[in-house]
Amino acid sequence: MPVMYDRIALIGLGLIASSIALATRKAGSAGQIMGYDLAPEVRSEARALGFCDRVEDTAADAVKGADLVILAVPVGAMGPVVEEIAPTLRPGAVLTDVGSVKRAVITAVTPHVPPGVQFIPGHPLAGTENSGPGAGFAELFQNRWCLLTPMSPDGVDQLRAFWQAMGANVAEINPDHHDLVLAVTSHAPHLIAYTMVGVADDLTRVTDGEVINYSAAGFRDFTRIAASEPAMWRDVFLNNKDATLEILGRFTEELFSLQRAIRTGDGAYLHAYFTRTREIRRGIIEAGQDTGKADLGRGL
Amino acid sequence: MPVMYDRIALIGLGLIASSIALATRKAGSAGQIMGYDLAPEVRSEARALGFCDRVEDTAADAVKGADLVILAVPVGAMGPVVEEIAPTLRPGAVLTDVGSVKRAVITAVTPHVPPGVQFIPGHPLAGTENSGPGAGFAELFQNRWCLLTPMSPDGVDQLRAFWQAMGANVAEINPDHHDLVLAVTSHAPHLIAYTMVGVADDLTRVTDGEVINYSAAGFRDFTRIAASEPAMWRDVFLNNKDATLEILGRFTEELFSLQRAIRTGDGAYLHAYFTRTREIRRGIIEAGQDTGKADLGRGL
Repeated sequence: MPVMYDRIALIGLGLIASSIALATRKAGSAGQIMGYDLAPEVRSEARALGFCDRVEDTAADAVKGADLVILAVPVGAMGPVVEEIAPTLRPGAVLTDVGSVKRAVITAVTPHVPPGVQFIPGHPLAGTENSGPGAGFAELFQNRWCLLTPMSPDGVDQLRAFWQAMGANVAEINPDHHDLVLAVTSHAPHLIAYTMVGVADDLTRVTDGEVINYSAAGFRDFTRIAASEPAMWRDVFLNNKDATLEILGRFTEELFSLQRAIRTGDGAYLHAYFTRTREIRRGIIEAGQDTGKADLGRGL
Repeated sequence: MPVMYDRIALIGLGLIASSIALATRKAGSAGQIMGYDLAPEVRSEARALGFCDRVEDTAADAVKGADLVILAVPVGAMGPVVEEIAPTLRPGAVLTDVGSVKRAVITAVTPHVPPGVQFIPGHPLAGTENSGPGAGFAELFQNRWCLLTPMSPDGVDQLRAFWQAMGANVAEINPDHHDLVLAVTSHAPHLIAYTMVGVADDLTRVTDGEVINYSAAGFRDFTRIAASEPAMWRDVFLNNKDATLEILGRFTEELFSLQRAIRTGDGAYLHAYFTRTREIRRGIIEAGQDTGKADLGRGL
């Protein structure tokens, strides 16, 4: 594969950035990979892991001369980071991000983008419950969607090809619609999982050992979701407040209707509801976003 | 391994019963395996799959001469099934079940158990989102807990050994406490997952294609849970009404506190909450009820 960018810079060296480095290296789509993280211990770990050609001690040094800069920091840190690196960004460079919220990132980043630099917001829908530079792997984006919310067509074709080279499917979407769709498919489910795991932890009549040993019956999947990186998720909720609260409102309303069916013994309502939700699962398997193979949570 | 029961009878031939048959056969712990299912097409499928020595056309024929009878039907069907087979149960036989609710099953079944037959309620905490006789596999119970709620010690040692021979860990528990613990680790999480998937399905501003394609970001795990067998789950909620509604009440209360934190921008509260839930996940991995390996939902 031809080199698409001579030098890329990764700002924030967690799961997503380390996976981008590994996938890019495998694809041969970047000449040189520079990296930076705010935390000295993450920089050391990244240096030891060696997925970047060089890890710098400042963000400004990392982006120097890069023709693609990828922001992979929590959503709330995007604005300040761009303010910091703006004077060092090379004219003609493309700046992109991997944040789970798009409107708030656009609002925070745009004022700091210098003339001649193209900001193309992005969001790869990929991740695991593990975080940090050691959690990355080259296949993370394989057959996953990467959503771009460009404000102009400049540089988009090349960035699309760069994500495709990592195995991703790329689509363009309006940033506000992105935030609503993600509130449904990601942000609300995460908050709900966090909540349920918190309830279990609070319930003093049930011991920790019971919750943990007997988790295989459904709860285990919630704990997996609720193990995601706390700072990242705090920022997601604070920055996609309106859509998340709207979906949670709909969720509560719907939950109350099911609670009422349980209370009144309306088995027909419950059965029809559960039959309908089962169909959605079939759609996801057919769309290739999951396997029909049962998840046993133990590598079987 | 020595034969523990000369003849076992499986009533209801879905995921759990077919897995018991396959695991028992592998362990060599039963002489003969008889089966019955209410649905003629399930009986035909089970015959074709061949995991029973014989599949009978009536429950009474299947239990004739069995020294262990395992009820693997939805919780609401347990009472009627036992009423039907009671006259044919062999004196000295052990009757057990695999229902996800224990108090309601005990109340429904006990009046029909003939003298000389020992009823030992049970619940293996194992399952997948797939159902039916073709979904079973011999390893389903491996390293999973099977909870027994015996009312007398008679026959318990042998039944424990039988489950252990299938790879399960066995514990005894009070039936009401079982129903509370399972409301936390299984019943409430399932209802919540069903609800969230229903909300996504209702949201007309978000298309099906978007929900399905962009499911990898959290929602996918909910759809897996929400794909579980509708009749089984209807019966679970109707028969563990009080504990499930109590936990859902706690859940809603907690969800409101997190919604308030989002609305007021209380990032410290959110961060502390998410850090705490992450610890629970670590406990589950350490207890061997899940792997630390990321779930990619695509067999990678």
